[in-house]
Amino acid sequence: MQGFYDERQTAHDPKFYLRAGRQIPSPEQPARAAALKAGAEAAGVRFASPPDAGIGPIAAVHTSEYLHFLQTIHARWTAMPNASAEVIPNIHPARRTDSYPSAPVGLAGYHQADTSCVITAQTWSSAYWSAQTAIAAADAVSAEGPVYALCRPPGHHCFTDLAGGFCYLNNAAIAAERLRAKGKRVAILDIDVHHGNGTQGIFYARGDVLTVSIHADPEGFYPFFWGHAQERGEGAGLGANLNLPLVMGSDTAAFLGALDHALKRIAAFGPDVLVIAAGLDAHEEDPFQGLKVTTEGFTEIGARIAQAGYPTLLVQEGGYLSDALSRNLTALLGGFGT
Amino acid sequence: MQGFYDERQTAHDPKFYLRAGRQIPSPEQPARAAALKAGAEAAGVRFASPPDAGIGPIAAVHTSEYLHFLQTIHARWTAMPNASAEVIPNIHPARRTDSYPSAPVGLAGYHQADTSCVITAQTWSSAYWSAQTAIAAADAVSAEGPVYALCRPPGHHCFTDLAGGFCYLNNAAIAAERLRAKGKRVAILDIDVHHGNGTQGIFYARGDVLTVSIHADPEGFYPFFWGHAQERGEGAGLGANLNLPLVMGSDTAAFLGALDHALKRIAAFGPDVLVIAAGLDAHEEDPFQGLKVTTEGFTEIGARIAQAGYPTLLVQEGGYLSDALSRNLTALLGGFGT
Repeated sequence: MQGFYDERQTAHDPKFYLRAGRQIPSPEQPARAAALKAGAEAAGVRFASPPDAGIGPIAAVHTSEYLHFLQTIHARWTAMPNASAEVIPNIHPARRTDSYPSAPVGLAGYHQADTSCVITAQTWSSAYWSAQTAIAAADAVSAEGPVYALCRPPGHHCFTDLAGGFCYLNNAAIAAERLRAKGKRVAILDIDVHHGNGTQGIFYARGDVLTVSIHADPEGFYPFFWGHAQERGEGAGLGANLNLPLVMGSDTAAFLGALDHALKRIAAFGPDVLVIAAGLDAHEEDPFQGLKVTTEGFTEIGARIAQAGYPTLLVQEGGYLSDALSRNLTALLGGFGT
Repeated sequence: MQGFYDERQTAHDPKFYLRAGRQIPSPEQPARAAALKAGAEAAGVRFASPPDAGIGPIAAVHTSEYLHFLQTIHARWTAMPNASAEVIPNIHPARRTDSYPSAPVGLAGYHQADTSCVITAQTWSSAYWSAQTAIAAADAVSAEGPVYALCRPPGHHCFTDLAGGFCYLNNAAIAAERLRAKGKRVAILDIDVHHGNGTQGIFYARGDVLTVSIHADPEGFYPFFWGHAQERGEGAGLGANLNLPLVMGSDTAAFLGALDHALKRIAAFGPDVLVIAAGLDAHEEDPFQGLKVTTEGFTEIGARIAQAGYPTLLVQEGGYLSDALSRNLTALLGGFGT
């Protein structure tokens, strides 16, 4: 299996993370990349570095305001007196149509939905190369077999102009849009334990990209405001978004039931390419403890997706450090049998 | 001059405050109340405790969802494993029409716009009595002379369902709505150094209450997203909101120029009652350092408002601990010459 990855993706190493009011270490650590790379290689993935496709495919998804912000805010923030070393939002607009701010504190609150997506001096470079990895994989996808993009930092919580949940550029959406530009019909299936709220938001009013997400019920789980079954899309996108929330602690069987439902909906949509937002944090040993999928369950998930027969692109999303992270990726990719 | 105040307003004593990414002590301390009370008494204010007018006048401004949140969230939050002692938001919705959350972390982000309005076990009681103080003062206002409401915590950054900037219940808006219920025509003039964004938001689509705010330009100052000159109201409220932002560091003369402009607009509106959102943080020694109004300037501000001749209710907003806080209130109230 072909894979893509760039070492520049590990430079981003955020320290601040506020959870239930307490500051704890960020779980989205650079060491994830090494664990994932080893797991992919154990499944037979051969990695190449992505070429630089430039900002164009990224700007096809994200606003220029937001891309400018990501590239400039750290320098502006740290120039403030007594500012922290990382950009951390502390005030947020009630409506995105309220005035666009000009001061760093206002910009941070406008473009960062939460305190888990702090921005360091290296964030832009790492997010840029994570997106390039997704773009290169999109360009390589074919009927010959699946392609794996080791995207880190992840992307699926990021909207067009709003970072969130460890995510800065929506790699899966950028890959999907890259494929759209080539005339491909695209469906995105998100199997991360957290709802793919950014991906949903980006395509919410569009009918040309189907977005499906299987995740722990947001009633009691991040991202709280999104991921409910009644969120079906709007305007031209009504019916082109499907959320399959599972009760917290659901097991492999429940996940596979939702997966079968998802694959039927995808079949009805008839995509040319399937993009998998491939989180591994639904695993029973993941620190987030949302669902209880087993390692063998990931093999079965991979096998059922492979059996659907679409040219498939796997874009890495979450999955956090535990003894199981590496082998869960081996299991998922192994399910494709290539 | 008649004044209202209740000792229960001091129980709220928040510790967490995140500014430019660093945690520092909250400047909205209970000691403000004592300093303000002394300053008012030095100007001849005689304080009484407010009667309990119940939740009705508060619910006339704030949503039941939000009032339920304020009363219950601290117990729910502190029941979470490893949660902080105060309720601190860390994730915020992109649109308020996204799903209403049910988990404490989601609720905090939905109803708290920033990290400066943390909620303690005592917040609801203190905010409730601060609002009762404003209601009692609204009931006492007459042509006989101004009435002073020592509201603490303050209110003007709070929207119908969104706390912010040390504010939980919008005391000035509650007082204005109480007067509206008696058939009075009401204008609100906000002289706090920070834009009265919550008050603006509450009445933004209404033409029956004029809202005017003089403040440091939000280009580089809290609340960042609101307070620009082009925000004029919407729908039935178009033209019934006037923002007069001043360049950071502006002096007394600049403030008085804006005040004269404000009073002309208020005269054109023809209110029966004028509500002053009476912040004192435009002073040159205030820790927030937005404007440079002198203590004598506050006397002149009071005198010009008094000269306009409306039955007037002064509702305390900001103004933070410095040697000048107490005497600035004496100066402002002294300007009324009563």
